[in-house]
Amino acid sequence: MSDTPNTTEHRYDALHLITEEVLARYSKTPDPRLRELMLSLIKHIHSFAKEVKLTAEEWAFTMSFLEETGKWCSPGRNEFMIFSDAFGLSMLTVTQDYPRPEHATEPTLVGPFLLENAPQFAMGADISAGAAGTPMYAQGQILDIHGQPVANAVIDVWHSDDRGLYDVQDGIEENGPWARAVLTTGADGRYSFWSVLPVDYPVPQDGTAIQMLKATTGRSWRPAHLHFRIQAPGQRPLITHIFDRTSQNLYSDAVFGVRPSLIADFVPQKPGPAPDGKTMDRDFFTLQYNFVMTDALK
Amino acid sequence: MSDTPNTTEHRYDALHLITEEVLARYSKTPDPRLRELMLSLIKHIHSFAKEVKLTAEEWAFTMSFLEETGKWCSPGRNEFMIFSDAFGLSMLTVTQDYPRPEHATEPTLVGPFLLENAPQFAMGADISAGAAGTPMYAQGQILDIHGQPVANAVIDVWHSDDRGLYDVQDGIEENGPWARAVLTTGADGRYSFWSVLPVDYPVPQDGTAIQMLKATTGRSWRPAHLHFRIQAPGQRPLITHIFDRTSQNLYSDAVFGVRPSLIADFVPQKPGPAPDGKTMDRDFFTLQYNFVMTDALK
Repeated sequence: MSDTPNTTEHRYDALHLITEEVLARYSKTPDPRLRELMLSLIKHIHSFAKEVKLTAEEWAFTMSFLEETGKWCSPGRNEFMIFSDAFGLSMLTVTQDYPRPEHATEPTLVGPFLLENAPQFAMGADISAGAAGTPMYAQGQILDIHGQPVANAVIDVWHSDDRGLYDVQDGIEENGPWARAVLTTGADGRYSFWSVLPVDYPVPQDGTAIQMLKATTGRSWRPAHLHFRIQAPGQRPLITHIFDRTSQNLYSDAVFGVRPSLIADFVPQKPGPAPDGKTMDRDFFTLQYNFVMTDALK
Repeated sequence: MSDTPNTTEHRYDALHLITEEVLARYSKTPDPRLRELMLSLIKHIHSFAKEVKLTAEEWAFTMSFLEETGKWCSPGRNEFMIFSDAFGLSMLTVTQDYPRPEHATEPTLVGPFLLENAPQFAMGADISAGAAGTPMYAQGQILDIHGQPVANAVIDVWHSDDRGLYDVQDGIEENGPWARAVLTTGADGRYSFWSVLPVDYPVPQDGTAIQMLKATTGRSWRPAHLHFRIQAPGQRPLITHIFDRTSQNLYSDAVFGVRPSLIADFVPQKPGPAPDGKTMDRDFFTLQYNFVMTDALK
């Protein structure tokens, strides 16, 4: 029993009153956009918990699981982002936030492995830095929406080796980055580089996201792809992939990232002359892909 | 352009089709309860992102913020749980998952600072272990729903010192635990211990939860309280607090944990005899509170 005054704290017997109390508190958030975000987030979190009648045991598991997920984060690997990707939230956000004129290159998710300040290479260089795999020569042009070359475009490219691993998953502290580069275009907007052919790979096998995927969709593989982030003056930054058309996992990407316009031919080549004049003594692949950027938001 | 066959992966231009695709994938989750949880969770996450038109920038901030939140977790501190508490999710779950017969003690949230395997003390001992504060003697009885004493009840009690800090926030690795104990009842179901008076305190000042609260509700303080977890054969585990009726923050608890039936009198006493026969040479407080457990779920 209590002799304290009858305040709103006394109304918790009914579940909807808990939600009302919490929303009333957060409605005092000063910033209008943050207020909008918080009220919607809390409303949906409460709706979820009520809809499924979340139990104390399930709640406790979730709290431990979030803490465990945090432990799998490291520079170049954000385990929470893998969950966002695997829940389709990343693609939903990319899709709704990216006004794309027709013919502009489609964006896709950034993925968990982007590193800022990657090593810079000269155009045409071999960026593999010791990564194992079949040689691949990629080239193309960065264009604006009007078809003009984009000069001074800063291109981040990063991808897996032939084991399906990224440098951040395999001792980057000791070995340094590999298959990861920054390239800058000249006046012609052209880019080119040598590296190794990326392969299909699963979500990291040692974290919590893979546990979730194995228990749910059973789809944990990604189709082979190259990651690109392209930034240039006057252009909206473009984050996208190029996918290998021959991949077995093209239509079951664990993170829903594939778009048809981003599927390209990684063309097998016999030993002999490469497009850049180099002579190859073994099999290799070539890729040609042009990126069309969109104007920066005003 | 693409010449690949027209599969479901090709329908991503419309936002609702992303959601449909993701839900279709997770509908293959083998375990029925996990399937129910995942489908509801994903539906609500997508609804949130669409409702607020979540931007790529806001999404990226959230991903970094989650990663940062993980870094503030340590043994005895789960920063994610503070968010759950501050969003009212913890109290909602406790409320809907705890069938409470009339007269049974109300549960409340566990909070982020519970440690398993706390030090065991004899009944009536001083559990403060050096924690600073005004002496407090607490006593009462553990009863079942029929009013009978509960023997062999294992009581975890943990609380703040007079700075408003818990042992896990202040060098527990070096100093060991304090104001934290396990006590076990005898046949009379009675408990008693000496410790120090808990005080009001804010959510930890060095993590991400406090950042969120400062930017939103502006309510980051908790009213002074003792934490209890009581486990006994045949009884449903009870996790609750006892709140100090004189607290300034009783009706603005940062985590919505207060229930009127859990508010009690921490009674100030002058130097002299204490309830256990000890003679005190300074001011102290006494607390009397009985806990009524409920039958274990069948």
